Amino acid sequence: MDINYQHIKVIGFDADDTLWVNETYFREAEDEIQRLLSKYETPNKIDQELFKMEMKNLPLYGYGVKAFILSMVEVALELSNYNVSNKTIEAILNIGKNMLEKPVELLDGVEDVLSVLSKKYRLILATKGDLLDQERKLEKSGLTKYFHHIEVLSDKQERNYSNLLSHLDIKPSEFLMIGNSLKSDVLPLVNINAHAIHIPFHTTWAHETVSKKETNGKTYKTISGLREVLNLLD
Amino acid sequence: MDINYQHIKVIGFDADDTLWVNETYFREAEDEIQRLLSKYETPNKIDQELFKMEMKNLPLYGYGVKAFILSMVEVALELSNYNVSNKTIEAILNIGKNMLEKPVELLDGVEDVLSVLSKKYRLILATKGDLLDQERKLEKSGLTKYFHHIEVLSDKQERNYSNLLSHLDIKPSEFLMIGNSLKSDVLPLVNINAHAIHIPFHTTWAHETVSKKETNGKTYKTISGLREVLNLLD
Repeated sequence: MDINYQHIKVIGFDADDTLWVNETYFREAEDEIQRLLSKYETPNKIDQELFKMEMKNLPLYGYGVKAFILSMVEVALELSNYNVSNKTIEAILNIGKNMLEKPVELLDGVEDVLSVLSKKYRLILATKGDLLDQERKLEKSGLTKYFHHIEVLSDKQERNYSNLLSHLDIKPSEFLMIGNSLKSDVLPLVNINAHAIHIPFHTTWAHETVSKKETNGKTYKTISGLREVLNLLD
Repeated sequence: MDINYQHIKVIGFDADDTLWVNETYFREAEDEIQRLLSKYETPNKIDQELFKMEMKNLPLYGYGVKAFILSMVEVALELSNYNVSNKTIEAILNIGKNMLEKPVELLDGVEDVLSVLSKKYRLILATKGDLLDQERKLEKSGLTKYFHHIEVLSDKQERNYSNLLSHLDIKPSEFLMIGNSLKSDVLPLVNINAHAIHIPFHTTWAHETVSKKETNGKTYKTISGLREVLNLLD
């Protein structure tokens, strides 16, 4: 499969689990809430109910750590049948605060690749997390200088990317998105005739998984690490 | 004081309390939490402690309804000395959900003014609230068609606006900001040599108030309603 990247002007990078570790911290937070609520339910049940709560609240809260904390508090109330202690609620708030204060752990090759690409393309960070959280991570990462700006999307569906392209005043063929989520960073782009490169991360949030059927016949590249982007774009 | 607006290309509108009612709903939420915690503290003390908590959490949570709910929960735990009931915690979560589901109440003249200005200028919505919440309000308001896009700023300080201008590729003299907050929508713009018009709203969050000293000698217009913008820009 040969894809022509020669018209690319702007490259959008997903942030979490594409540039730096993120999902790992959500998994750790889930382990923690399973421990905190262990006298009420099994780990598996807590996991399922938390995911259901996140999906229920998604239209109202959107993505990001604050939404996740609020859903954790609500799950604790419900699964304990309104018997959870105030100290446990406080511990849940603290899980969230700790997530927001985590150091940034860059994935392999990130700085090298951004340094090369930023000389030839306009790079933007395209994320659906909280803006403040992503700005903080970008600053901690030392990568700010490579990015023209951060774009926060309330979701990463086709219409969000179409709006982004019209806001950037570029054609779909001039935009390349790079990210770890087929659902959020790849398929919607391919569907609007923009470009996308997929770099899987070892952990994927259940909400981001897609079926084989959805990727059938779609034109995008999958690579195993960010460094390989340079071979494709050179 | 005569100000020359002839170089303006892009107009940024604050959203909350400039285009539609917002602060009123936060005041109602504060009344509600005072009622919920009335057996632990006086209304005045609850008000003070909530504001302190919001300021303490601001660097971590940023602005918006989700941050506000999380701070309300934390205040309830502390002021009750960890005795607040689970049902009260749930009621606090519901205050937040209700805020996110409020209908949009446009301020006087908004649609008329946007309709005229959008023919001559590029209009953007510049907000520090949650993107999803602002997108939802914009959609409910029926004003989407007048705006080129929404800019979410993690804060509205000089450096945030400077970044915005560089991202928009325009000079400060080509940008006009219109909003209800001297602190967030007016002074930082004047300080970076961009333009600003102030339209006071009847209620101002304590965090947004500024001293007389800070506005001394600053060049901006204050008008009493959005319709007057048309006289200034015509």
